[in-house]
Amino acid sequence: MHIMDQLIEKIIRTKNPSVIGLDPDMSKIPTCYKTKVPVSATLQAAAHVLFLFCRDIIDAVSPFVPAVKPQMAFFEKYGSCGVAAFEQVTAYAKTKGLAVIEDAKRNDIGNTAKAYADGHLGQVEMPDGSLRPSLNVDFLTVSPFLGSESLEPFIESCQMNNKGIFVLVKTSNKSSGEIQDVLAADGQSISQHLADYIARQGAGTRGTYGYSAVGAVVGATYPEQASVLRNRMPGQYFLVPGYGAQGGKARDILPCFHENGLGAIVNASRAILYDHMTSEDRARCTREQYMAGVKTAVLHMQKELYSTLKKEYPQMIY
Amino acid sequence: MHIMDQLIEKIIRTKNPSVIGLDPDMSKIPTCYKTKVPVSATLQAAAHVLFLFCRDIIDAVSPFVPAVKPQMAFFEKYGSCGVAAFEQVTAYAKTKGLAVIEDAKRNDIGNTAKAYADGHLGQVEMPDGSLRPSLNVDFLTVSPFLGSESLEPFIESCQMNNKGIFVLVKTSNKSSGEIQDVLAADGQSISQHLADYIARQGAGTRGTYGYSAVGAVVGATYPEQASVLRNRMPGQYFLVPGYGAQGGKARDILPCFHENGLGAIVNASRAILYDHMTSEDRARCTREQYMAGVKTAVLHMQKELYSTLKKEYPQMIY
Repeated sequence: MHIMDQLIEKIIRTKNPSVIGLDPDMSKIPTCYKTKVPVSATLQAAAHVLFLFCRDIIDAVSPFVPAVKPQMAFFEKYGSCGVAAFEQVTAYAKTKGLAVIEDAKRNDIGNTAKAYADGHLGQVEMPDGSLRPSLNVDFLTVSPFLGSESLEPFIESCQMNNKGIFVLVKTSNKSSGEIQDVLAADGQSISQHLADYIARQGAGTRGTYGYSAVGAVVGATYPEQASVLRNRMPGQYFLVPGYGAQGGKARDILPCFHENGLGAIVNASRAILYDHMTSEDRARCTREQYMAGVKTAVLHMQKELYSTLKKEYPQMIY
Repeated sequence: MHIMDQLIEKIIRTKNPSVIGLDPDMSKIPTCYKTKVPVSATLQAAAHVLFLFCRDIIDAVSPFVPAVKPQMAFFEKYGSCGVAAFEQVTAYAKTKGLAVIEDAKRNDIGNTAKAYADGHLGQVEMPDGSLRPSLNVDFLTVSPFLGSESLEPFIESCQMNNKGIFVLVKTSNKSSGEIQDVLAADGQSISQHLADYIARQGAGTRGTYGYSAVGAVVGATYPEQASVLRNRMPGQYFLVPGYGAQGGKARDILPCFHENGLGAIVNASRAILYDHMTSEDRARCTREQYMAGVKTAVLHMQKELYSTLKKEYPQMIY
């Protein structure tokens, strides 16, 4: 099944167009996870804590969400041990039926971009010339700073391997406009030019629901721009950061969606992973208590998103 | 010693303002390396081939160059095994006295950018709250697409840990201008705005030779723009890709340098790693034959660069 159809059917089944960002931050992980490792001051031990924490998060959220978005930075910071934990986490998420959106914002050109695409989405060459999958996630976020040459190898990889990417178009952060909002000679912003490029390049890869494997990252914090970008990229799924902790409200995400309730998947990380409990409580809670808090936060977000969408788009298909 | 002074003294000692890009590409690595691993179709075996190849390259080039630039994409594509090989390669390069410039073009915001900065340049938190270094390279390349918020954590990390970064300002590839050359309302390009930001932010971190720990990536393929950027960033070291395989000639890199022969370090990857031998010869050569070819290619590049510089800037300090 086309990768976008797979994602969309999970969204429909859970009535939840959201994705849980897995940002395992040692300083915020509850103490009960950190005391479970025998040797506590090695990169291996640290990486194992990341895995234990993310595994519990996955267990708590998997009945209610279509996807998780592991943030590679939080794993990679622990070097090869951290990347091994990333591999464990993504493998575990897949066994639970979740789509895996790797947030890594990779970018490079030519055969270097192809190396990233092969490693994360495709297959890699072995010493004997055979090919095998490596990180093998479902989706990857990609940065376009180096121009179309830096996107092509990823787009090709999507088509060859039935994978998806989300290209950074308009990010949710405060300084995103410094580059992304600059107007080119034709009066269109860089974000708009990127949107047109992506709409054009992604045209050949649509699934049954009409969406391309080549999507876009569009922040919840700029709803007016999201509305413009929605029109320019009718066949693109939006990955929407900035909801919750970064200030994006439920109604702000409406312009990212189509009237059928499809077209966007909203990320939440901190609200689900940490902010449902104070740091004092994170220091003394049990795993069971913590997971109960995660579950409550996920259900709260699902209800908020779904009711906001349903109110605006009563004809939505789920 | 300030990180830039360390790099500059290595450049002066070798009379060679160049860096060897370590882009271990399985399809181009000589066959003699691929037949050395016992099991040849696992990610572990593949990663070990990368290490064996890069170790020999380091042995061949270390007497003649100040630095190596491992390209993370070629390691990371093999997942945690590949990142472990990256760790082995960087550790080995350091024992040979080489500066390690990690080319990873990382970019993100807030605590995610900080996670990258901590992992690659700084220290990471252990489960017991203690800190220790992780990937611990000397320099990292960074992409600015998300704006100044995405650069600040890396700049702070440079200052705290005596490390350096090279921010993508004007890259060497054909489509680099699609975003980087766009003119903002004030008539200045995005590259020029980035240059001004970097010159401003990097001002507090200069070494004895006057260069900031915050440098810039400026391609050899756009010498006119390099000249403009050189003037706008007097205190920035330039990491210069695009020499050789991408079409940049020796005279094209002159605008990146100051008259003292400092200010830039020119990357070469393919010319040194692969192109000195045909693919047929790479299939049948011995390690010794291959390393002889690498050494010849490095010495040729050193001579070409140094004589071009010396002719243009007879008063250079080395």
